[in-house]
Amino acid sequence: MKILEDKILKEGKVFPGNVLKVDSFLNHQIDVELIDRLGEVFYEKYKNKNITKVLTIEASGIAIACATARLLEVPVVFAKKTQSLNIGNDVYVTRVSSFTHGRDYDVTVSRNYLTKEDIVLLVDDFLAIGNAMKGLIEICDQAGAGIAGIGICIEKGFQKGGADLRQMGYDVTSLAIVDGMEDDGTINFREQEE
Amino acid sequence: MKILEDKILKEGKVFPGNVLKVDSFLNHQIDVELIDRLGEVFYEKYKNKNITKVLTIEASGIAIACATARLLEVPVVFAKKTQSLNIGNDVYVTRVSSFTHGRDYDVTVSRNYLTKEDIVLLVDDFLAIGNAMKGLIEICDQAGAGIAGIGICIEKGFQKGGADLRQMGYDVTSLAIVDGMEDDGTINFREQEE
Repeated sequence: MKILEDKILKEGKVFPGNVLKVDSFLNHQIDVELIDRLGEVFYEKYKNKNITKVLTIEASGIAIACATARLLEVPVVFAKKTQSLNIGNDVYVTRVSSFTHGRDYDVTVSRNYLTKEDIVLLVDDFLAIGNAMKGLIEICDQAGAGIAGIGICIEKGFQKGGADLRQMGYDVTSLAIVDGMEDDGTINFREQEE
Repeated sequence: MKILEDKILKEGKVFPGNVLKVDSFLNHQIDVELIDRLGEVFYEKYKNKNITKVLTIEASGIAIACATARLLEVPVVFAKKTQSLNIGNDVYVTRVSSFTHGRDYDVTVSRNYLTKEDIVLLVDDFLAIGNAMKGLIEICDQAGAGIAGIGICIEKGFQKGGADLRQMGYDVTSLAIVDGMEDDGTINFREQEE
């Protein structure tokens, strides 16, 4: 998606270790107008899939989830990250290893807000090795909920998450796929149809 | 605000210890249409205050912050909660005691996204003893940013946060103020002008 790629080129910062920081518009400061336009793309792609919930994970996924759910006219559910040991049995829970933060955490969703009647669109701001997204899929499996697709703002195409999810059969829509970054700050995007 | 009070009466759950759970529409599942209507109220109240940023704190504040910022046509900045010890000097940081979770955490905002040129509207989903909001005020003070007002979805009027903030001179707009809860589930709202 050209406006997103342009924004990444203009404001994204490349750091050693394949780190791409986009916290000027996506995951610290939020450019609401841009996020709304990204949500429109997910809406157009998935509007005929009978989606009942948009599921994301706190915190940076919430804005794009709301932008998408508004148009689909369904609620957002955001999974919670917790390190607490005493989790009740009123939640679905799965363990996720965080590559970014170097530690594990539990992801929980209340059983009240996800059931086998639901058809879910999963969305998140970033997809890299895909552990958080696989955690959300595991939560949906526990609930018996169907998964209509996966919407990602920025995919790191040189890491395995996107390939894994597509191989598992999921319909993954990534609005920008970064296939490589150079130390001089160059960012290479995968060509996609608009 | 009647639609919010009605929603709280219909879906809110009262637990011992003055706990009010509204996770069916505000802080786990999100009723995006309702949140957008709450954002409209903050917009109408503060639209002439030359606001440049809407500042909130992850995670449950993000949805209402986006709903408000969209109409104000300004960015959202969400402060991050962290327990890490090695925080760089490129952020404002303040320590907050969490009443709900019984432990302290640091709240950080990048120096890139809040400056003395900013006039900020602070928003959050809940206000109880007010520690998180006082943390955001401290962050604004560090940045030299102005504070135009504080928008809260649900204030627990029987806890001291709202009174403290008003005494400090801030223009606090709480869309529903719960003045008391009974063990039988009764919820009493403070009367306010619509």
